[in-house]
Amino acid sequence: MKFNGRNVWISPKAKIGSNVKIGDNSAIYDHVEIGDNSIICNDSVIGEPLVAYYHDPDYENPPTVMGPKSLVRSHSIIYAGCILGRCFSTGHRVTIRENTTIGECCSVGTLSDIQGNVKIGSYCRLHSNVHISQTCAIGDFVFLYPFSVMTNDPYPPSLDLKGGHIGNYSQVGVHVVILPGVRVGANCLIGANSVVNKKVQDFSLAMGDPARVIMDIRKYLVMGKGNPYPWMHRFERGMPWEGLGFETWMQQNVKK
Amino acid sequence: MKFNGRNVWISPKAKIGSNVKIGDNSAIYDHVEIGDNSIICNDSVIGEPLVAYYHDPDYENPPTVMGPKSLVRSHSIIYAGCILGRCFSTGHRVTIRENTTIGECCSVGTLSDIQGNVKIGSYCRLHSNVHISQTCAIGDFVFLYPFSVMTNDPYPPSLDLKGGHIGNYSQVGVHVVILPGVRVGANCLIGANSVVNKKVQDFSLAMGDPARVIMDIRKYLVMGKGNPYPWMHRFERGMPWEGLGFETWMQQNVKK
Amino acid sequence: MKFNGRNVWISPKAKIGSNVKIGDNSAIYDHVEIGDNSIICNDSVIGEPLVAYYHDPDYENPPTVMGPKSLVRSHSIIYAGCILGRCFSTGHRVTIRENTTIGECCSVGTLSDIQGNVKIGSYCRLHSNVHISQTCAIGDFVFLYPFSVMTNDPYPPSLDLKGGHIGNYSQVGVHVVILPGVRVGANCLIGANSVVNKKVQDFSLAMGDPARVIMDIRKYLVMGKGNPYPWMHRFERGMPWEGLGFETWMQQNVKK
Repeated sequence: MKFNGRNVWISPKAKIGSNVKIGDNSAIYDHVEIGDNSIICNDSVIGEPLVAYYHDPDYENPPTVMGPKSLVRSHSIIYAGCILGRCFSTGHRVTIRENTTIGECCSVGTLSDIQGNVKIGSYCRLHSNVHISQTCAIGDFVFLYPFSVMTNDPYPPSLDLKGGHIGNYSQVGVHVVILPGVRVGANCLIGANSVVNKKVQDFSLAMGDPARVIMDIRKYLVMGKGNPYPWMHRFERGMPWEGLGFETWMQQNVKK
Repeated sequence: MKFNGRNVWISPKAKIGSNVKIGDNSAIYDHVEIGDNSIICNDSVIGEPLVAYYHDPDYENPPTVMGPKSLVRSHSIIYAGCILGRCFSTGHRVTIRENTTIGECCSVGTLSDIQGNVKIGSYCRLHSNVHISQTCAIGDFVFLYPFSVMTNDPYPPSLDLKGGHIGNYSQVGVHVVILPGVRVGANCLIGANSVVNKKVQDFSLAMGDPARVIMDIRKYLVMGKGNPYPWMHRFERGMPWEGLGFETWMQQNVKK
Repeated sequence: MKFNGRNVWISPKAKIGSNVKIGDNSAIYDHVEIGDNSIICNDSVIGEPLVAYYHDPDYENPPTVMGPKSLVRSHSIIYAGCILGRCFSTGHRVTIRENTTIGECCSVGTLSDIQGNVKIGSYCRLHSNVHISQTCAIGDFVFLYPFSVMTNDPYPPSLDLKGGHIGNYSQVGVHVVILPGVRVGANCLIGANSVVNKKVQDFSLAMGDPARVIMDIRKYLVMGKGNPYPWMHRFERGMPWEGLGFETWMQQNVKK
């Protein structure tokens, strides 16, 4: 099937864990370390060299680390210098540029494009076609939906890049634009197609172009459903509180 | 050229019709059936296995059917369980997830991403970079333009998915967002960058965020052109009324 | 590494300059000419045949020219009939359709999609995921940011395509839509998420849906920074005035 070793290239300087599958037509470059029980599907590149590689005969690839139990779907490209925690997964044709750090149990959807020097926490979900500019940062348990963008250049074109920040547990809707340097607090919900041009406080429901805070998200009532936010009490698939409940998990975590 | 059988993998459990060309570096998985006179270009995957494939040693690929005279352009990925009618075509790097059903003579543009469990009628055109979420449905003769999105999650994140619906003959402009569960009627035109948050009646011209109905599309006059909608009277390329005219075709169809 | 000649196909009718590197799994078609010192990374296609190729046994690929010192990153597809100036570069998975002409020293970002019969000047930067429809035209030193779109169909669907135009030095923000046939002047800045539905004069700062001119960009003051526009006085990376300054370069250029 697709893991039959056909047209695969693995650098002798890569370290491949035990029980790792590498799909056909994939390439693993120098100084890549792939954790145990990971799957790299077909036509992928892990440890893609930086631009100096093309011109510098002494180029040395920086280390790239992918944690155990990762799943990279086909046609994805992960640059050298990325540090990705355990249980990392991608859709197809994902690009992650150099020196990006991603925590545990995150997923990055089909066609998403992380431009490098980005920090992402743990348990985040980037759906399809999310674009994160350089120097942006994202907390834990953050979800971004298709075609959402974090930008970084306040006076384009410039070299004065200011990535924004999204706090823990926040949800960023489809086609949302976070303008350069803007901070979205924790536990926010940003409505579809919003342009966020200034700081959004924790627990805000914000929407519009420019985005305005409509209400405290804890007061948001849905007919027949009550208050769906904060969402951690009603959604647990893939979250560390799965099977436990958020409150129990929090109590256990705080004890530690 | 690109159909020289270089680095091609075809499952012995696939059924390939007569006069089918398969491009270099492509893979055809178990239980895929490709109709006669189809072309699968290079670096494509047809019958991509579902996620259980990676872990379940007894995994069996569900059947995938592609009708005759189809053309899949390079680097596209079509998951197992899809049923695609005759004369189906794609641009490059299209993703179609599992259990999607598409009628006859549809095209799906470069980089479009159909997330699975989607139903699309016949003679639809999805241009580049269209994103359709799970459980959405689209009628016949519907056109969607670049970066348009159909969403499905009313209170993200949730598992309570409610795909929307677009009626026959409707045109959905660039960067339009259809919110979860929203129904766009037949013969509508949705202007660029609109966010559609509630039901749109048949024959509406709607635009804005949130989208508002501006007028009955049949009253829309363009200087020097008269009324361009419904469009079927003036556009026929690739439509079943090509060379016949819409009214004649309708009369013939109704007779049947 | 990735230039080890593995699974490469080069037409005997292609002309490859001196010191050109071609990555693994790439294909170079008939009548492609690649200038000296260029790099074509892995899994790319240069000179992708037009649709007649699939059906016409007498099909002949039109000439494709890529200037010297070009860098095409992996998984990109450049159709036959394109003429690309020196120092052209792309991100990953770029698509450039047939008969597109691009000047010198342009870059086209990851996942961008240029639909064919497009004219782009010199020193332009298309960032990731920019979509340019057929018959659109772009001047020199123009920057377009992610998910920006130039459209071309005033009454979709039609065959009456009218591409827009963007003048020299203009900056087009993320998620901007330029409607069919609209002219954006020179030295403009179009804010994020705008929909440009009518002509924008030179030196305009415009934003909104529909876009309105907010002020003459030369009067735009930023606290602590003064006036950042026109931008050529403060940004020179990769521009022909790098190391010289814009005014000196202009004077030298005018003398010529």
